Amino acid sequence: MALFYSKRDLRFHVYEVQHAETLLNYPYFQDHSRESFDLVLDAADQIAVKLLYPLLTEMDRAEPQLANGKIRVHPGMKAIVKQFGADGWINATFSYDEGGQQLPVTIQNSAGFIFQAANYSASVYPFLTTGAANLIRTFGSRALIDAYTPRMYTGEWQGTMALTEPGAGSSLSDITTSATPTGQEGVYHIRGEKIFISCGDHDACTNVVHLMLARISGAPAGVKGISLFVVPQQRIGAGQQLEPNDVLTAGVYHKMGYKGAPIAHLSMGNNGNCEGYLVGEPNKGLSYMFQMMNEARVGVGMNATAIGTAAYHASLAYAGQRPQGRRITEKDPALPQTLIINHADVKRLLLFQKSVVEGSLSLLLYCSYLADLAHVETGEARDNALLLLDLLTPVAKSYPSEMCCLTTSAAVQILGGAGYTTDFPVEQYYREARIHPIHEGTTAIHGLDLLGRKISLQHGKAAQLYFQAVMTTIAEAQQIPSLQPLADTLNTVCGRVQQLTGQLLGQARQDPEAFLADATLYLELFGLVTIGWRWLQQAITASQALANAHAADQPFYQGKILTVRYFFDYELIKTDALIHRLSASAHVTLAMQPDWF
Amino acid sequence: MALFYSKRDLRFHVYEVQHAETLLNYPYFQDHSRESFDLVLDAADQIAVKLLYPLLTEMDRAEPQLANGKIRVHPGMKAIVKQFGADGWINATFSYDEGGQQLPVTIQNSAGFIFQAANYSASVYPFLTTGAANLIRTFGSRALIDAYTPRMYTGEWQGTMALTEPGAGSSLSDITTSATPTGQEGVYHIRGEKIFISCGDHDACTNVVHLMLARISGAPAGVKGISLFVVPQQRIGAGQQLEPNDVLTAGVYHKMGYKGAPIAHLSMGNNGNCEGYLVGEPNKGLSYMFQMMNEARVGVGMNATAIGTAAYHASLAYAGQRPQGRRITEKDPALPQTLIINHADVKRLLLFQKSVVEGSLSLLLYCSYLADLAHVETGEARDNALLLLDLLTPVAKSYPSEMCCLTTSAAVQILGGAGYTTDFPVEQYYREARIHPIHEGTTAIHGLDLLGRKISLQHGKAAQLYFQAVMTTIAEAQQIPSLQPLADTLNTVCGRVQQLTGQLLGQARQDPEAFLADATLYLELFGLVTIGWRWLQQAITASQALANAHAADQPFYQGKILTVRYFFDYELIKTDALIHRLSASAHVTLAMQPDWF
Repeated sequence: MALFYSKRDLRFHVYEVQHAETLLNYPYFQDHSRESFDLVLDAADQIAVKLLYPLLTEMDRAEPQLANGKIRVHPGMKAIVKQFGADGWINATFSYDEGGQQLPVTIQNSAGFIFQAANYSASVYPFLTTGAANLIRTFGSRALIDAYTPRMYTGEWQGTMALTEPGAGSSLSDITTSATPTGQEGVYHIRGEKIFISCGDHDACTNVVHLMLARISGAPAGVKGISLFVVPQQRIGAGQQLEPNDVLTAGVYHKMGYKGAPIAHLSMGNNGNCEGYLVGEPNKGLSYMFQMMNEARVGVGMNATAIGTAAYHASLAYAGQRPQGRRITEKDPALPQTLIINHADVKRLLLFQKSVVEGSLSLLLYCSYLADLAHVETGEARDNALLLLDLLTPVAKSYPSEMCCLTTSAAVQILGGAGYTTDFPVEQYYREARIHPIHEGTTAIHGLDLLGRKISLQHGKAAQLYFQAVMTTIAEAQQIPSLQPLADTLNTVCGRVQQLTGQLLGQARQDPEAFLADATLYLELFGLVTIGWRWLQQAITASQALANAHAADQPFYQGKILTVRYFFDYELIKTDALIHRLSASAHVTLAMQPDWF
Repeated sequence: MALFYSKRDLRFHVYEVQHAETLLNYPYFQDHSRESFDLVLDAADQIAVKLLYPLLTEMDRAEPQLANGKIRVHPGMKAIVKQFGADGWINATFSYDEGGQQLPVTIQNSAGFIFQAANYSASVYPFLTTGAANLIRTFGSRALIDAYTPRMYTGEWQGTMALTEPGAGSSLSDITTSATPTGQEGVYHIRGEKIFISCGDHDACTNVVHLMLARISGAPAGVKGISLFVVPQQRIGAGQQLEPNDVLTAGVYHKMGYKGAPIAHLSMGNNGNCEGYLVGEPNKGLSYMFQMMNEARVGVGMNATAIGTAAYHASLAYAGQRPQGRRITEKDPALPQTLIINHADVKRLLLFQKSVVEGSLSLLLYCSYLADLAHVETGEARDNALLLLDLLTPVAKSYPSEMCCLTTSAAVQILGGAGYTTDFPVEQYYREARIHPIHEGTTAIHGLDLLGRKISLQHGKAAQLYFQAVMTTIAEAQQIPSLQPLADTLNTVCGRVQQLTGQLLGQARQDPEAFLADATLYLELFGLVTIGWRWLQQAITASQALANAHAADQPFYQGKILTVRYFFDYELIKTDALIHRLSASAHVTLAMQPDWF
């Protein structure tokens, strides 16, 4: 049994809740089968157990170092990136034409979840390459595709997304990296600085291909003047030889966690000799990048969930082995101590973790399934899948990111003093989880995105699709007597959220600052409702399965049914205060003055 | 200006809210004055700025190491412990007879807050010595006091509390370290293992004096058979010479944060030659130790608050200097970026931190003042102060400990990617804050203590005193029109908490497991009400002061008044869901079975 996730639970989500086999009806996926999906998940498990998990702690302790202009990472990463390439993980979802396997995103992301739970830092390398290659293949010219993607697919070359600059983090409109035409079509001279570039330089690959945002000379100010470039660390020169492209690694960041992945500070064009190759049309870079960012955002939600899952299983294992204290009703010191899993508060801390990580996984695989539908469906079905995915992206990114900071904290708490030491992995999970509310857009940015843009997307059609989906689940649950009270509760909360949303949108024009002042709390509220919905869906499946389940499988379904009750009793209950807060007209955050702090 | 706390705010708490000068009316404190208090706080500031804060990062990076049986700590610690001893900080609150300064605990803890905010790890060394010496002077024989305390007061010797064992952490009744009479009165042979002993061994002092719990041969099982011993690392032998006492340093823990303080694993009596000196009477060790633990618990609350304060000020400084993005109503990319302190969500994250850390500081200084009253008052006034302090201790320990994990997280969030790197101290604060919900009793233990013991202490007299104190503040606030709505809100919440408490106590006998199942949430609820009360008290002071304040002081008071509104609007509002949850009869945590996870 893997220590860092539950095979049984993953299969529950993939097959019993998300019904991944329904994808087999689409021609694009017709060569696959339940068996081939299982083989993929088993193969991921094997790599995770044999290659990734054994390096979890080591990679945390031997941080990447910059020496002689090159970042050196853990030597074990060479074998890992090679394996990912050789097994076809990097382009698994791409078409056969491109050397891919036409694997559903649902299955690919399930495999990714296993990798991330085993060793988050190591999982980042291939994940970034996939995203970068996806941008080139979607928007790049044939020449760019042929030149750069093949060696990214084999794992020889690393891909990155290079957006952030010293003066432009959350505010991408302020990037200043410049692109000057060279005279040769599509080729520009790049000059500027990029910071916080994940896998921006390292010695486990032989080249790095940056998908970089820059501003072509004379482009409009703001987001409308940003273009996308391929900026390789080494460019393909005469005779297909690689030659240096004037991309300097100016620094490596030392950070709280996630230490196995090198995060670089890059400096381009110091010698006036850095070439960038335009991807697609000028000034459309940000909209292209958003394709990659949306995938990356769902990916970050999955990363957070995977780390939270690993911490949950580590603390669950500990709680089932550690005797300490006695039950409330059994205080005789002559009796042996009880296992801490029998204490109500330890069970609460475990249920909290289970409810968050399994609820999040359900949402993320739902989003993955939408991505598959968007790819293989047509017409309205495709448009609806894309629209719903667009709405859910900030939630799927932020709920797991914020909450897994708290669930990994609960894991530390279960282990007590031992959890604070480096003798157990939970302290590492706690440190690693903390990056997720920050990268790929902070939680505040996603709050503004959800309330300020997504909710009113296509005149509210995205929101309408969302509430329809939730209502479908509620209606189904109302047919199961044991779930009816939960269904009614979620129904009431949904009604209140819809009413609140209308009220908020009503003030959007006359007072946009007040409208968005508590957008982060709106996102939190939306997250609670969404995870409540995903738990109700799981409870429907579990309730139906329990009747005919083997004895050995019954505890699994019982646990699901109890966890949905936990989520409603302890978590969904928090929506009241949020709705109250968001309905209020006074905004102390707007009234507060900087010099009053 | 210090970077890690606000002098102005500390003085507001000490003088304007807690009115520390009122202590000058008691003979014990009669030699002091407002001026001498200020001198003490200024001296603490100087040590913090010059000695402690400069080593904050270094001590985190150069962890204590065990070599040849000795733990080596940062070389700078020698000068620090020497300075603390020379300046009389270790026994400052003790009587003149004992070489002390008869300083109020209120002032001593305020100075401690400054040290802890500057460098938490460094502050722990003298703090532990004070606690250990306090136990010896209170319960030990004249001979023990004379032998051991003088060199603890000078900082030459380190004091510790040695409770935890591999099989006995939260469950102290299960300790097995044994004490066998040697025939010499009061002298025992000690044998056993102690783990997680803070400052249990290091090379900044020349000896370590452990205040250790052990079980005398033939003692009753459980807590009634635990005795307290002085177990020095080196004992005082013939001719006052120090000789080894068979206390082996078996290990040093490597941990997530709080790395500058050495945490030891000790092994006593491997060669049958470890002497322990009985403190007070046999089998009363745990009740003695609780004196030290209660001080330590209020101390932990202060530690958490201090770290939270340092993180708040670091993120506040950053937010006031970092331009990023534009206001919601001002999106022109040609305009310069705004400082992030102008974004509503950044102000929310700052207000959250401010409300938690300044609310906690107010509670902790209130507790300190009660400790002073308990010392200098007599009769009912003394008894009441002790009783209220006893009730508040789990709250004063746990609310800051739990919440400053979240406030340091908010500080990291404000800095974004920069906050996740080691270039700024906030990631260290985040790691250091995480120890506090664990040591000196986990949050769950304090929940059980509050609901299971303290609330019904002396037939509910402690609770009655508490609600009287809160009601006095409410009545005062109701006289100030601008505060009346807040006072009414707190009044309503208090009424509901009292009703809930009665309801819960009603089921204590028939179903003790259900009664205590959510004790941690009861503690959380109690914490919110208590901090709401402390904020209302601050708001009264600020409202009254604002009318006559100098222009330069007005922003300070305005900030206070706005922050109480923040606390009520965003934090106290969470009491609803907690009361709802605690009133419910179903307990999923009791229903959940270990094999269902």
